[in-house]
Amino acid sequence: MRRYTPARFTDVKLTGAFWRERLDTVLARTVPSQHRQLAAHGILESLKLPKPVPPVSIPPNRHNFTTQIFWDSDVGKWIEVASYALAHKRDAEIEAQIDAVVEDLAKAQLPDGYLNCWYIQRELENRWTNLRDNHELYNAGHLLEGAIAYYQATGRRRFLDIMERYLDHIAETFGTGPGQKRGYPGHPEIELALVKLYHLTGDKRRLDLAAYFVNERGAKPNYFDIEAEARGDDHYWAGTHEYSQSHKPVREQDKAVGHAVRAMYLYTAMADLAAELDDAALKRACERLWEDITTKRMYVTAGVGPSAHNEGFTKDYDLPNDTAYAETCASVALILWAQRMLNLDLEGKYADTLELALFNGALTGLSRDGEHYFYDNPLESDGSHTRWAWHPCPCCTMNASRLIASVSGYFYATSADSLIVHLYGGTETTLDVAGTRVGVMEESDYPWSGAVSITLTPEAETEFGLKLRIPGWARGARAKVNGEEIDVAANTVNGYLGIRRRWAKGDRVELDLPMRPERVYANPQVSADFGRVALRRGPLVYCLEQADNPGIPVRQTRLPRNSEVRALARNDLFDGATLLTAEGKAIDDDGWQRALYRTEPPRERPATLTAIPYFLWNNRGPGPMQVWIAEEV
Amino acid sequence: MRRYTPARFTDVKLTGAFWRERLDTVLARTVPSQHRQLAAHGILESLKLPKPVPPVSIPPNRHNFTTQIFWDSDVGKWIEVASYALAHKRDAEIEAQIDAVVEDLAKAQLPDGYLNCWYIQRELENRWTNLRDNHELYNAGHLLEGAIAYYQATGRRRFLDIMERYLDHIAETFGTGPGQKRGYPGHPEIELALVKLYHLTGDKRRLDLAAYFVNERGAKPNYFDIEAEARGDDHYWAGTHEYSQSHKPVREQDKAVGHAVRAMYLYTAMADLAAELDDAALKRACERLWEDITTKRMYVTAGVGPSAHNEGFTKDYDLPNDTAYAETCASVALILWAQRMLNLDLEGKYADTLELALFNGALTGLSRDGEHYFYDNPLESDGSHTRWAWHPCPCCTMNASRLIASVSGYFYATSADSLIVHLYGGTETTLDVAGTRVGVMEESDYPWSGAVSITLTPEAETEFGLKLRIPGWARGARAKVNGEEIDVAANTVNGYLGIRRRWAKGDRVELDLPMRPERVYANPQVSADFGRVALRRGPLVYCLEQADNPGIPVRQTRLPRNSEVRALARNDLFDGATLLTAEGKAIDDDGWQRALYRTEPPRERPATLTAIPYFLWNNRGPGPMQVWIAEEV
Repeated sequence: MRRYTPARFTDVKLTGAFWRERLDTVLARTVPSQHRQLAAHGILESLKLPKPVPPVSIPPNRHNFTTQIFWDSDVGKWIEVASYALAHKRDAEIEAQIDAVVEDLAKAQLPDGYLNCWYIQRELENRWTNLRDNHELYNAGHLLEGAIAYYQATGRRRFLDIMERYLDHIAETFGTGPGQKRGYPGHPEIELALVKLYHLTGDKRRLDLAAYFVNERGAKPNYFDIEAEARGDDHYWAGTHEYSQSHKPVREQDKAVGHAVRAMYLYTAMADLAAELDDAALKRACERLWEDITTKRMYVTAGVGPSAHNEGFTKDYDLPNDTAYAETCASVALILWAQRMLNLDLEGKYADTLELALFNGALTGLSRDGEHYFYDNPLESDGSHTRWAWHPCPCCTMNASRLIASVSGYFYATSADSLIVHLYGGTETTLDVAGTRVGVMEESDYPWSGAVSITLTPEAETEFGLKLRIPGWARGARAKVNGEEIDVAANTVNGYLGIRRRWAKGDRVELDLPMRPERVYANPQVSADFGRVALRRGPLVYCLEQADNPGIPVRQTRLPRNSEVRALARNDLFDGATLLTAEGKAIDDDGWQRALYRTEPPRERPATLTAIPYFLWNNRGPGPMQVWIAEEV
Repeated sequence: MRRYTPARFTDVKLTGAFWRERLDTVLARTVPSQHRQLAAHGILESLKLPKPVPPVSIPPNRHNFTTQIFWDSDVGKWIEVASYALAHKRDAEIEAQIDAVVEDLAKAQLPDGYLNCWYIQRELENRWTNLRDNHELYNAGHLLEGAIAYYQATGRRRFLDIMERYLDHIAETFGTGPGQKRGYPGHPEIELALVKLYHLTGDKRRLDLAAYFVNERGAKPNYFDIEAEARGDDHYWAGTHEYSQSHKPVREQDKAVGHAVRAMYLYTAMADLAAELDDAALKRACERLWEDITTKRMYVTAGVGPSAHNEGFTKDYDLPNDTAYAETCASVALILWAQRMLNLDLEGKYADTLELALFNGALTGLSRDGEHYFYDNPLESDGSHTRWAWHPCPCCTMNASRLIASVSGYFYATSADSLIVHLYGGTETTLDVAGTRVGVMEESDYPWSGAVSITLTPEAETEFGLKLRIPGWARGARAKVNGEEIDVAANTVNGYLGIRRRWAKGDRVELDLPMRPERVYANPQVSADFGRVALRRGPLVYCLEQADNPGIPVRQTRLPRNSEVRALARNDLFDGATLLTAEGKAIDDDGWQRALYRTEPPRERPATLTAIPYFLWNNRGPGPMQVWIAEEV
């Protein structure tokens, strides 16, 4: 069922200024600083076994749960990021750092293959007794992704071999056979890691294990109840099997519920398996869930999971702005899922959401300096929400960095006879298309400009389809092939402009994706956004941040509907950014004399409003911010 | 320091239709139905000791805490309500029901005076080890209020004697003396009950105990930490001493924090003690906290405590509408506090808030049929919020009914030489004023009309001040004495119109409080209400409820600022109600084709909007509702 294969990020070079800057920052600053943080917080030390058991450093929460229990995953994710860095540029110091960790993991691994540093050190007798909460399989998944990335970057097998042994143990432990536990992860992750491994090695057993975990999920009686009873547990979380998407079998699921990151990882694995196993029911479930989220449960920034309470989904159209949780990890994982959906069907809606999540939901998570992060991403702040250098649950830090370090992997795909361009931004690559090596050079100042130029260099003149994504926001897009205009509307199917011809060296396609500043309205059922408007230009959602609006209380503004919104290029800001500006009104607090309510309307005055891309906010110190601006009709 | 003494509710007869209906409903339906509910839920049975210990009926929550632990308080509150009913009209059946409960309590009481049915039955060894969470003193307070009310209604001492013995035990157990525990209640309540008892008996020891509990609160080291450590507890709630307002000594407190009902009960007791003990520092603390709440932390309905998370306060101007907790009990307790503040100073701001809380925050809690309740009171609902017949934590049920059963006690007060009228609504009373018995007959259709006529009948012609509250909303109020107009503005101080003269039999004061429909705006810092308007007429806040607006999505409407809001008397609705109506716009969902976001503005159409008093909503089945309407400027 897989029809499209993404180009590997190692095959695509970023040349455009926008992504080059982000990538360079991650390689130069984020990867080393994350290693320092792992060391400083005792996470690297926690792998060195055996040793006297130190006290728990992250105090357990009210459920007697400490996030320290998934430190292994942080290590796995860092190795993944660091390996992506190596794939861009070999670096002996980073390799030595990874090797040291791998050495510790090798020593920690038990003779039977088991490898979880928390359990081995603290409560080995309890291993595999709480899949619901304690993230053993989730940790294994992230370690596996790290091992795969390291192998791909360096060709060194040691970590991969360790993980293969661990996977043998896991495959022995779980399954439907006699004596096996019919368990599956409380937090999905290992499933998609196993598919990755299958792609790497072709070992079908790994794909089977992923399929087992996905298929078993939600079977009755619920496994998490069974193991909770065996533990004498309180059933607190078990009372909400929706939290872990184990409330019903995955093929029957049609509402996005529970913990958002778990949901996104699960759906990613489901889409992976639908492709690998030609599973139409699984694909349909993915489509239903996609439809549910993108039509009822997603922020305009592609943030998902509005509530801090369950780190997840609530109810349709419940998208509060100031309390939006919209975890960075969830948007990163939405990108993973969208990419898998694009492997199944070339539908612009998947790529539009992928791009929206990339530039807004996910990119926002990493600061300009590459060393500060957002975990949750509200769309409105009174100024108290600010980036942090580390977190008791540092999952988002390395999800942002591993995404950026591998972002070039989301730009291109190929099918049997086509070359597909999903994203734009200045890249160079050479890919096999229809049996020929085809050089591709894309020049663009995207996302600041929608002008894109693509030059193809096939080794030999070859016929194939070039499919260029026409983003949903790009109304009136135009295209030329070797200077000759082609009819975009007539040749676009599901958001992709198809140009089939015999391509020769030096053929040039120019694309003009109009980036007009636009007003976006939410469905009236989203009461948080009612009477409000968001600003967007191209793939970027904008916000009013205090720093650009001195003297204006940014959350107390009104934008008349007839006020023109203009783009404003600001080369002095960060590495150059296009802002938006419009004449609006500011509502003042003065004259209230401390009153909370009064019968006289608030006073207002003219004010020039300036909006900055949402992903750039809070890089100039804390301050109020708002995405949805009250509109004056 | 006490300057004003409220007239007892037993001395004031309600004759106006509005309150008469509510009172009759409570007496005829609520009191008996609450007894049935207490029986049906095993709460009455739980007092019958000793017996085999039955399983806990209310499942413990995730903190292993069951609300069943404060069943004693429910019994105490029901006896209080039922006694108030008896004070209106003796009833042998109710008396027998109360006597049966008192008999059970007498049997349950231990030889040392201790009386808590949960602990006696289940874990006597743990008594007085968790004042923070387990409500022993809170329960004692409500039992005491019940005992006082029953004694006042019937003259029977038995329950009061039981409680006096229990109080002796409590006074022995807690205090600063050698061998005493320096504890105080996690949930204040007993403090104000003790002041009530002091008023009844004059026993200064009870006042001293109340003062001890209030003064000890927040002393360092924190008592709740000490007892938690002794229990080996997790410190979860202890981590937030603000939750129980024990984060600092009460005289240093200046922000309303933590659990809202606890806060209100505490502040009520503080105001009580400020009056009784001439404690200026305590009074100042009350004034600071009052200012904090009413200028930054109170809904337009006088609901307080926006968050379900802590059932309490969050941060300034954080007043979300759809998730507003605004517990009924908290508004009831705000009324108690406001009344105590009025004992100290005759300030219209206290009475305005008292009235606002009465007609909106509190009255909303009880259904028209007198047998259904709101616990939390959002100001916006998608239709899922609805009244319930009982609750695992039924505190609000009897707080609403005891308030209504004694509401006539909030209408009048006297000082050395004045008669004060705080509220209007049709009443008759005879009070001692300046040494003379003065008959007072007030006629009014309040709150539907602001026309009030008061006829005084002093036994002998006497000079005294009549102080009539001029509500803050009543702009352009007019008054006549025996047909002769007097200058209201010139004679009004702090919201009270003072008329000092020699009053003779039959003197008649007419008051005209203009009840124009008004628009109310929230301080622009309340982002939830930004760009929105609420409607008010007299003391009533209005809302759009689906039932009155067929075909209009009430949460998707806009009210132009220049649209006239008209009063609309509807005799066919309930027992007659004044609605508000205005021409506005309705925004339709259609044309969205399931889109969550789009660039085209939502379509709108003209729509006549009809608003109903907030306290009446959800008496015609579930449906969407909204207080703050988007305004079109």
